[in-house]
Formats: sequence, C-alpha cells, structure tokens
Amino acid sequence: MVVTGLENNNNSNANPSAVNSNNKGRTSWNIKTPTLAKNTINRIRIIVESLKISPNPAKPMIPLTIGDPTTFGNLKAADETMKAVLHAIESGKFNGYAHTQGHESARKAVAKYCAHQSSEEIKPENICLTSGCSSALEYSILALAEKGQNILIPRPGFCLYQTLTEGMGIEVRYYDLLPEKQWEADLKQMESLIDENTAALIINNPSNPCGSVFSREHLEDILAICEKYYVPIIADEVYEHFVFPGAKHYAVSALSKNVPVFSCGGLTKRFLVPGWRTGWVIIHDRENRLAEATRGLKNMCGRILGSNTLVQGALPAILENTPQSFFDSVIDILSENANLAWSMLKKIRGLNPVMPTGAMYMMVGINIEQFPEFADDTQFVQELVNQQSVFCLPGSCFELPNFVRLVLTIPKAMIEEACSRIAEFCEAHYKVDNSIIETNLLDEISY
Amino acid sequence: MVVTGLENNNNSNANPSAVNSNNKGRTSWNIKTPTLAKNTINRIRIIVESLKISPNPAKPMIPLTIGDPTTFGNLKAADETMKAVLHAIESGKFNGYAHTQGHESARKAVAKYCAHQSSEEIKPENICLTSGCSSALEYSILALAEKGQNILIPRPGFCLYQTLTEGMGIEVRYYDLLPEKQWEADLKQMESLIDENTAALIINNPSNPCGSVFSREHLEDILAICEKYYVPIIADEVYEHFVFPGAKHYAVSALSKNVPVFSCGGLTKRFLVPGWRTGWVIIHDRENRLAEATRGLKNMCGRILGSNTLVQGALPAILENTPQSFFDSVIDILSENANLAWSMLKKIRGLNPVMPTGAMYMMVGINIEQFPEFADDTQFVQELVNQQSVFCLPGSCFELPNFVRLVLTIPKAMIEEACSRIAEFCEAHYKVDNSIIETNLLDEISY
Repeated sequence: MVVTGLENNNNSNANPSAVNSNNKGRTSWNIKTPTLAKNTINRIRIIVESLKISPNPAKPMIPLTIGDPTTFGNLKAADETMKAVLHAIESGKFNGYAHTQGHESARKAVAKYCAHQSSEEIKPENICLTSGCSSALEYSILALAEKGQNILIPRPGFCLYQTLTEGMGIEVRYYDLLPEKQWEADLKQMESLIDENTAALIINNPSNPCGSVFSREHLEDILAICEKYYVPIIADEVYEHFVFPGAKHYAVSALSKNVPVFSCGGLTKRFLVPGWRTGWVIIHDRENRLAEATRGLKNMCGRILGSNTLVQGALPAILENTPQSFFDSVIDILSENANLAWSMLKKIRGLNPVMPTGAMYMMVGINIEQFPEFADDTQFVQELVNQQSVFCLPGSCFELPNFVRLVLTIPKAMIEEACSRIAEFCEAHYKVDNSIIETNLLDEISY
Repeated sequence: MVVTGLENNNNSNANPSAVNSNNKGRTSWNIKTPTLAKNTINRIRIIVESLKISPNPAKPMIPLTIGDPTTFGNLKAADETMKAVLHAIESGKFNGYAHTQGHESARKAVAKYCAHQSSEEIKPENICLTSGCSSALEYSILALAEKGQNILIPRPGFCLYQTLTEGMGIEVRYYDLLPEKQWEADLKQMESLIDENTAALIINNPSNPCGSVFSREHLEDILAICEKYYVPIIADEVYEHFVFPGAKHYAVSALSKNVPVFSCGGLTKRFLVPGWRTGWVIIHDRENRLAEATRGLKNMCGRILGSNTLVQGALPAILENTPQSFFDSVIDILSENANLAWSMLKKIRGLNPVMPTGAMYMMVGINIEQFPEFADDTQFVQELVNQQSVFCLPGSCFELPNFVRLVLTIPKAMIEEACSRIAEFCEAHYKVDNSIIETNLLDEISY
C-alpha cells in the first residue's frame, strides 16, 4: 500500500507505517538547523525588535532609522536612470540569462565608470556584477575567508559584515573608529588584531554609520599595515561618491599597486535605486597575488547569477547619461541636512553630534551619565520614540553603545522637527552633574 | 614614514618594510583559497571547457545546449509581462528596498498564483522571494543541510544542486531516474541511500534534463519514503507549468500534509524571462515540523535581499494578466518540437530518444558500443560539433554518460536541420555489431 501524507495527517510518530524498519534514518521530525542559517543574524533587527516601542500618538512618527533614501519621496532617481531601464525593457533584448559575471557591455560600462579606482586600465574580466552590493561583499568575503580564519571589520560598522560571516564560522575582529579623530581607524589596535589567520580587512569608506571619509594619508597608513602583514582589502565603497563639499574620497585601490583590493560598489545609493540590486566587485590585483581567490570569486558568481539583466542592459546608459547636476543636487540636500542637524543637535546639553563629511548618516554621542533615567543608548532610543515619536538607531546596532545614528535623507522639515523634539526630550531628562560642570569650566578656562 | 604601495610596487617580499616584525601575521602573499569558493563548481562548464571544439565552418552552428529559451527570438515574453514591468518602473514606487522576504503585495500574488500547491491557504509570510530559482534552491538547501549531512539528488539531474552543496561540505547522493520507466526514480535505491544524516530530498519535476513529469502515484510513493524516514522535500518545480498535452503535473506539496516541502519556483521559464532573477520558495509545513529551518530560511534571505524590486512591483500584474493563450502557445511549440525531434531521432540507428512530457529538454541515449570510434558521450558530442556543427550537452554533465541532452526551445527549422545532421553523423560512424543485430531480431521475434 502506498501511504500518502493525505491519508496520514495525524502525528507521524504515532503512525505505524512511519516506523523506520531498517532503523537507519531519522526516527522523528526532530530536525537540526544548520549553523549557517541559524547564525545568519541581523543585529539591527534583533536590537530593534527587543525595544518596547509605542510612539506618542500625539506626534507623527519621524523614522530617522531608515537607510533607504527613497522612502520619503524627496530623493528620487534621475529621469535618465529610469529612462535607461525603460529602453532596456522595450528593446526586448535583456530577458535572457547573462554571463555569470554579467553582460560584457555592462561590465565595460562599470570599468569606465570606475576608472578612477586604478592607475591601470580596469578590464571587464575583473568585474563581477552581483545582486546588490550585499552580494558583492558576500562573495568577496567568501572568496577570501573561511571557518577558522578572521576578518577585521570597523567598529562602529555596518552590521551586514557580521551577518555574512559569523554563520560561516569566520571570526570578526573589530578595529575601532575614533570619533575624536573624525572616525579614523585606531591603527595600533588594528595592527594588534592581525594574526596568521587574518584573511582580509574590510574598510567602509565613506562609512555607514559614521558618515566619515578617510583622508589619503590615513588610507596610506592602512595600506602600509596590509602590506606589512599581507592582508588583502575588501573595500566597501558603495558610498564613494557621497562626499560633502570640502571633503575628497580616494579609492583605496588607487593608492596601492601592491595590496590587492576587492572593491565593492553599486548603483544602490548614488542612483537612489537600492531595490534594483545592482552591485559589483572590481578585482584590483595588479601584482597577481589573488589569482586563486579571484577564481573562487568568479566561481561564487555561478551560484545564482544574481544580477538582474534588465538593469544590466540599462547600465551603460545609466552610467553614461545620469547627469552630474543630479548627483550634485543629492549631495547638496544631504550636506544641508547634515549642517542643519549638526547645528541644532550641537546646542543640546548631553549630546555630541559628530559632523559627517560623506555618506548619509550622522552619529550623535550621548553622555549617558547625564541622562540617569536611561541605562544605555537602547533605552534612550526607546524612550525617545515613546515620548517624541522620533526613532533613531541605537549605536549598539553598530557595536558602539552610547551613540545614536540618524539618517540625513529625510525631508529638511522633518529633520528640523526631529531635532526640536530631541532637544525637548533631552532637556526633560538631562540631569546636571556638578562634577561635570566643574570640568567644563576648567576646560573653558584652559582655552 | 608611511609606506604606500605606489612607492613600493616591486615585489613586497623584497621590501624591508614588509617584514612582519611581530612575526605573527602572514609572511607572504601566499593566500589559501577557502574550500567553498574553490569547490563551487559548475560541472557543465568544466565538461564543455574540456571539449576540443572547432565547428565545421561549412555548416552554421546549431547550439542545442542552451537552456535559455530566449536565445533565438522564437520564444518571447508576453506583452502583458513586459507592460507590467514598464508600469512598475513608470510608477516610480519600486526603487527602494523591499522586505527581506519581498514586498507583501508580490508575495500575496505568488500565494494566489501557487494556490494549487496546497490544500490549505498559502500565507504570504510563508513565501520568500529570491534572486531567481537558483537562490531559492540555495537557501532551501542551506536551511536544511550542512557539512557532514547529505542530500539526495536525481541522476541525471540539474548540476546546480551539486554546485550549491559540495563547496559547503554537504554530500550529494544520487538516486537514479530510469529511462525505461519514463525517468521515474528508482525507489528501492532511493530508500537505500537514506541514513540519519540525510537532510533533504530534492525532486525536480518536471525534470531538467529528462523532460519527464512524475505521475501522482509516483509522487505518493516518494512521499511515503520521506514520511517513513522523516526526510523533508525540496521541490524544484520551476518547470511546473511546462507540461505537454496528455500529461499532468502534481505539486508534491499538494499530495501530503505530513511531509514538509520547500517548493522552489519562479518566473524564469514559464514567463520566458530567466535574466530577471525572480524566484521564490514556498514553505509548505502544515504540521509545523520545520519551524527552525523556516526561521533559518528567512534568515538567509537577509543576506543579500536578492529579488529585484522592479519585477516585484510588477509581479501582481504579471501573474494576473499574462494570458493563458500565451502559455498555451509556448507549450504547443515545445511539444511540436519534441514530437519532431523524437520522430526523426527515433529512426537513427544507435540512438534511443526518450520522449519528454514536459520541461524543454529531451534526453537521447547513445548505444556507444555501436560507435566504436568514440570512447564516450563527450567524444561523441565533440565530434558531432566538429563535423556537423551541432552542439548537444553530453549526459556526463548530468551524471548520466552515454546520453546527450537537446533543448527543444530553438526554432523548428533548426531542430529539423540538427536532426538531419545528427542522422548523417550517426550513419557515418555507426558500426554494425552482429551480436546486437541477433539480439534485436530475437527481440522482434519475441513480440
């Protein structure tokens, strides 16, 4: 008799036909979950879900949490970007599979667009198109590191680096970014973390969540460490063109021929189309140090052929035709919002905003001892939502407690309103600490 | 002094500043490649690249290898499908990030479209949109299996199952599909492969490369085995609607409430848009046996948020508006091509085509001993290209030697021409083997 599930949908443990007569397979549906799937964790989600949030119904919610610049409608993709995709669809030429690394025409366009990343010509064969910059990072990491090895990542830093690695048994080691030094890396500490199992160093420049941009000198210092210890770099440069007036971004790959770099980027942020999932890895390995890892990276691209072909078809036109005026206007908005938020938050007792020079975020330090009602940044954030309906991400999401991260992509009026409410909130909860006042006075005298 | 790579682009081994004074990091660029990246291998590519191919310049090439139905322009996506994406783009609403499992509107549309897969209502929370069906398969496998475990996969079968697993240290065990039984699985052998480390059974129905469609009874027999040994099913049903007149496809999830099924599908084949990378996993787990694995599957979706949002935005309209007449016309073409190829190949001495009932492929057995010039199917394929410019995939690509796989999606005239050339090739190389003739005669006498 054929036993079908439909005939036996009672508990199968009680089902005589389900007894394993050979006694060799499982004896129940008690199924172990693989470590990778279990430990693929998004720290932001875990922390946010742990908050007990009920926004103040008298005040409309202002989410300063959302890393998606398109949410509020104030930042929109350029007409040229949209038209390029419309044309690609209308052509009917881009419905089929692409090469595992992406269509050659698309890779040639990326090579041209990213020419500043190298002192040598970038060849299309050294570009892999991926499903967003996330996939570019995933494949770059997995082409270099495996269980038992470690990678160095920034603290504070984008939580995806952990999400992608820890389930794989790859250890993450944090090098500190120092707020008092415009979020430069603590180089001594970075160096001290390296051992023979250090497979790669991730740098994120400009930085999420810091909004900082490394100077050329600082990048050269990092390169010197990588060269000394033979550590390849994975450069998360998805914000590379999000740089405010006065600052300048240097692609780390352009500053060294000797240290190999997998540079990860994409349309996502600059073109305001994060959902399109169009990212890339550019392999900068001019001294041929990563030949095997490069083969591995290309192998990884064969797993899912992740990059959407409609966007691939549009990529040459997107990269060629989207005008500089569009990019400039986005930067103007971000930079104005940064200035506005910084100038308002700077006046609030107990807060220390750090002025960003790029990306689309600002980190704001909290003198938590001056808010004795709150144990930490998560409680501060929770009460800020509950009382003022302003939602920031706690610094703990980025491994840096006693900070909050604000996004700068929301409309100006909302930034203004949010900062006013934050001021009200802080004034209500700030407690004078005499010892601090004395210190401050002393500080002022000494200046 | 800061040592930059630009100043030291000579061999860093000879660079005094590159000596690791602490003696704790690497001492050269000798970098080990991770097992996963190294062992993520596409068997088809390896075999094809090993062939020594130079097509006959006197005859235009006919590639019967390409699993992309859009290559020749005879099969085109429906206007309704294309319009739906144009509208999604024009709306400007689908540039931002989606939920990790995909937009709810898109998941609701998939739930409705796939309602036949379950005796119960499919909930959007049990659907994960992915970057193509490949990613659906990847996440389903990695949510169930890990290093030290094994999964059962069909032989012959789609090589991606190996590509996705072997690098992860997951063992693949092959259950045989029997050409003489319309490619039904060898159930006894399947059962004998199961042990306590068997994490999942993959069924591919309709099958690539066989073009076969399992009967309801056969699926129920497979379910009985899975129920007996508590083995969840990963159902690769990306061809579920590619079924020729006279055959019927049953979703395995519809035939059992007791055996949990991760069903993988997508727009890819049926809508003729494989490059769009729009796939999904539907979690059929009505007895709640895979709660942890389901969480793991959803975790995995957080790695890259792979599914393109433009297509997600269009998905409700695509699934609702693409007319039945479009699907019927595609099936008519495939089925006519199958009949044409089968009737022509059947007449060729030394070949045994197996008539498909679904998907878009035909397997053709080669009596290799009747072609003594060729050692195996790969040499047969190589010489067929070199002499006749007709390119099929050797069965070895699917772990079944002495077969070749033809695609049925190319224009009819090319199928006809290809089969004529195959006939010419086989006639030129066929060698009469008297012992076989005698056997055949005996066979005929006995009927």
